[in-house]
Amino acid sequence: MFALTLLYFTLWLQVICEVGCRDPLDQPNIVLIVADDMGYGDLSSFGHPTQEPGAIDRMVVEGMKFTQWYSPESMCSPSRGAMLTGRLPVRVGLYGPTERVFLPDMMAGLPKDEITIAEALKGVGYATGMTGKWHLGINEFQASDGNHLPSHHGFDDVGIITPWTHHATCDEKKQIVPFPNRNMCYLYYNTAIIQQPVSHHNLTKAMLLDAKAFIYNHEYQPFFYLFSFLQLHDSLFAAPEFQGSSVRGNYGDSLNEVSWVVGEILETLKSLKLERNTLVLFISDHGSHVEICSDGGKNSPFRGGKETTWEGGFRVPAIAWWPGVIQAGVVSQDIISSMDIFSTFLELAGAISPDDRVIDGISFKPHLLSSGKVPHTRVTIHYYCADRLMAMRYKAYKAHFFSKPNFSPDRYSALCREGWPEIRSYSCYSCYNSCIRSHELSPLLYNVEKDPEELHQLSSKKHNKILMEIWQAKEQHLNSLVKGRPLFTSDGSVSLIPCCNPPYCYCNYFPKYSLNQYTE
Amino acid sequence: MFALTLLYFTLWLQVICEVGCRDPLDQPNIVLIVADDMGYGDLSSFGHPTQEPGAIDRMVVEGMKFTQWYSPESMCSPSRGAMLTGRLPVRVGLYGPTERVFLPDMMAGLPKDEITIAEALKGVGYATGMTGKWHLGINEFQASDGNHLPSHHGFDDVGIITPWTHHATCDEKKQIVPFPNRNMCYLYYNTAIIQQPVSHHNLTKAMLLDAKAFIYNHEYQPFFYLFSFLQLHDSLFAAPEFQGSSVRGNYGDSLNEVSWVVGEILETLKSLKLERNTLVLFISDHGSHVEICSDGGKNSPFRGGKETTWEGGFRVPAIAWWPGVIQAGVVSQDIISSMDIFSTFLELAGAISPDDRVIDGISFKPHLLSSGKVPHTRVTIHYYCADRLMAMRYKAYKAHFFSKPNFSPDRYSALCREGWPEIRSYSCYSCYNSCIRSHELSPLLYNVEKDPEELHQLSSKKHNKILMEIWQAKEQHLNSLVKGRPLFTSDGSVSLIPCCNPPYCYCNYFPKYSLNQYTE
Repeated sequence: MFALTLLYFTLWLQVICEVGCRDPLDQPNIVLIVADDMGYGDLSSFGHPTQEPGAIDRMVVEGMKFTQWYSPESMCSPSRGAMLTGRLPVRVGLYGPTERVFLPDMMAGLPKDEITIAEALKGVGYATGMTGKWHLGINEFQASDGNHLPSHHGFDDVGIITPWTHHATCDEKKQIVPFPNRNMCYLYYNTAIIQQPVSHHNLTKAMLLDAKAFIYNHEYQPFFYLFSFLQLHDSLFAAPEFQGSSVRGNYGDSLNEVSWVVGEILETLKSLKLERNTLVLFISDHGSHVEICSDGGKNSPFRGGKETTWEGGFRVPAIAWWPGVIQAGVVSQDIISSMDIFSTFLELAGAISPDDRVIDGISFKPHLLSSGKVPHTRVTIHYYCADRLMAMRYKAYKAHFFSKPNFSPDRYSALCREGWPEIRSYSCYSCYNSCIRSHELSPLLYNVEKDPEELHQLSSKKHNKILMEIWQAKEQHLNSLVKGRPLFTSDGSVSLIPCCNPPYCYCNYFPKYSLNQYTE
Repeated sequence: MFALTLLYFTLWLQVICEVGCRDPLDQPNIVLIVADDMGYGDLSSFGHPTQEPGAIDRMVVEGMKFTQWYSPESMCSPSRGAMLTGRLPVRVGLYGPTERVFLPDMMAGLPKDEITIAEALKGVGYATGMTGKWHLGINEFQASDGNHLPSHHGFDDVGIITPWTHHATCDEKKQIVPFPNRNMCYLYYNTAIIQQPVSHHNLTKAMLLDAKAFIYNHEYQPFFYLFSFLQLHDSLFAAPEFQGSSVRGNYGDSLNEVSWVVGEILETLKSLKLERNTLVLFISDHGSHVEICSDGGKNSPFRGGKETTWEGGFRVPAIAWWPGVIQAGVVSQDIISSMDIFSTFLELAGAISPDDRVIDGISFKPHLLSSGKVPHTRVTIHYYCADRLMAMRYKAYKAHFFSKPNFSPDRYSALCREGWPEIRSYSCYSCYNSCIRSHELSPLLYNVEKDPEELHQLSSKKHNKILMEIWQAKEQHLNSLVKGRPLFTSDGSVSLIPCCNPPYCYCNYFPKYSLNQYTE
């Protein structure tokens, strides 16, 4: 039946392509759009009652919406590193004894022997490029070598990037810090610092210009482009014309700009008649940061958020758009991980997956091309906090071996009251301190298909069989696991902090073309 | 601009209709479909991650989705009475000293001098009919007069109805009660009891047969039909072929049947080529009953549920479908009340709204026919519990003068653990007892557009101006309010309980045609 469907589909595509287009499945272009800290419940099409609908929601109408899509981790660096390599963060070494992301003073980054999607696709003739948030390392040996920036990981055409997320420390509006911290706030163009401290003014629009230029320049060559939003992390900025555009305030304004930019990217593809040859995938890197109150997003209907292993930390909105190939309006409720992107993109591009290492990604190409009719084969999700396996999903069930406190409505109401200081940190950041509760002897068990909110704890007696299966899968996983060397370590030195012109660390070479084009 | 849009629209409709169809706006048919206790977050298209998408979700794709639609009350009888009369429950008398709905032993019902939508539309030539849940009274003087049943309130063609909701007491599966309580469980066909106790077997499908017969019989006459589901109240039943159809369990199975039935109604209209001449409106009567744990639905992303005045109690999913008249895929985020249905339907039908009483409904016909481009004019929502004004929404703001305890995740986890007795009642049923907290001196204030979850309490100092406006609107409302005589009163006698053949109260005249057609 599925084979017949695929055959029919292939024949149909051939008919289409006999009238003049490039075969959509022949090394399709791929645009991967990643939002920062966007929650599952933030978009109108994912259930937010007042967020203004926009181009991302039109992607849902025209494409395929995923409702059980998981990020590989609930913090930025491990999630993004796993997405680009198809490997669990713990294998890559994307963890540390205290920190959970790369900080700018660390002499560390994504290991060079890891193979990113960009590197794999370059190998089969793809043009590669990116703009936006990186957060997988800056320097290797000294403060200015930039040896861990994207151009060293397979991205040839790199535009405006920020090596990590620092809006809270670069706040020009002085709502959070009294002045931007130049040690923390710099903008790169490829490997050069072009602005220190960062100005958020028109930043996203300048990124859009980079993306458009890349697409125009590679109209006739298969390409892979990563558009990595700096928003909605802290949601502190939006271009002037989006300020006040949302009833939700700053966060909604920022999301409206994000949605507009996504629409511009789709329009650019359409204007070059590339839409049938381009898969566009939109995801968030992990759940939203609930502790920053109204400056954070919504993970509804899930509990918890960024940094936790509740569903709110790991479930993300995801949408695939590929007119003529993916049917419009499909809803996929299969379990998918962002690590599966690696395997899927490689298979679509005709690249061979590396066989000298464990790849945790599983290609969902058959699921995608059948518009969801062929089920995806993933049944397991590992919820790590650093190198601690906190929870596992197996089929419909999820067992928590450890849990973090839940930022509940009561804590919200207590901490997020207007006029009270909003907190900019986390309820329980570390993966090892006393805020973590152990359930190793009797795991908290939920059926997250029946009960996605993780509210109705199942009896371990009644579900002994499934608990045994999970326990076996856990033991098998942990026994065969080879952990990478932990990379999030810092020597506390400030000498590695990037600086465009020591000792001043103050400059502004923000591209004139962008400014001229976009300054009102 | 709006006038131009409407003019253009009218011209376009005329062009369509010159090629042979009845003008869609000339006394359109109206089908009002009401789900029982369905929560805002239960449907795939309203954000549920695992509920299987169905025909109701296709209505969203093909029609208009409403995200700020309010029920008039968070209990059945007051909500339904207000919907049918366009008047606040407190004006109609839909409240009582202890009870919050009509019970079968009460000698009471919707007052005869109230004008229902059915009566108003009958007056301008509409055929009227209904099937399903009524819950607006049974008897007036004695146990068998049926003076308050739908045929006495303007519904001419009445099929299978249940006068109130009694699934929990009629549970054939004996999961809740040891045997069905015949004093509580009876099925009517129009004014005659045809089954006592009720069997849920194929009940919804028999209702569908009634609806189809009505539509076929009135193909050439404007009609108003109320399809009032018995589901998803307690979610205890689904037709055999839907049992096990949902990963969510009983509740999801039941919802899948509901969605299938909605699809059948739309298909019936299409098969008669009536879809351009028929407005179909789908709503829920109020939020879901969260205290019954996994047998209840989801009000995500809102707090609270049925019986409370948190948004979870009052916000409901709502979808309008009218191909060729309402644009596909529109999302309306305007404030609308189910009481507005009365005024809207009357205006669409060309009926005059009564001028001898206060009508709280405001027609949203311009909003509907412009596919949301013309804003709806409603700015206020009153949240009543019996005759107590608990809260008011005014524009984006909501002030709570009283509040009920919130059934939070912590209470869920404590009460809804598998194996523990699930409760079948409410955390705080009454509108006057000690579980209610007063905030009269300093109302809890939220911006429910920015913060639909009611998590970030606003400072009353900073929002003094809006609080004053709300206070003035409240005083104005209360000062001019004339309360109806409270109707939910009972003399405790059992003599008024319906019985098909005293003293046995046991019978089964379930229509043979239905049984034959649907028994597997």
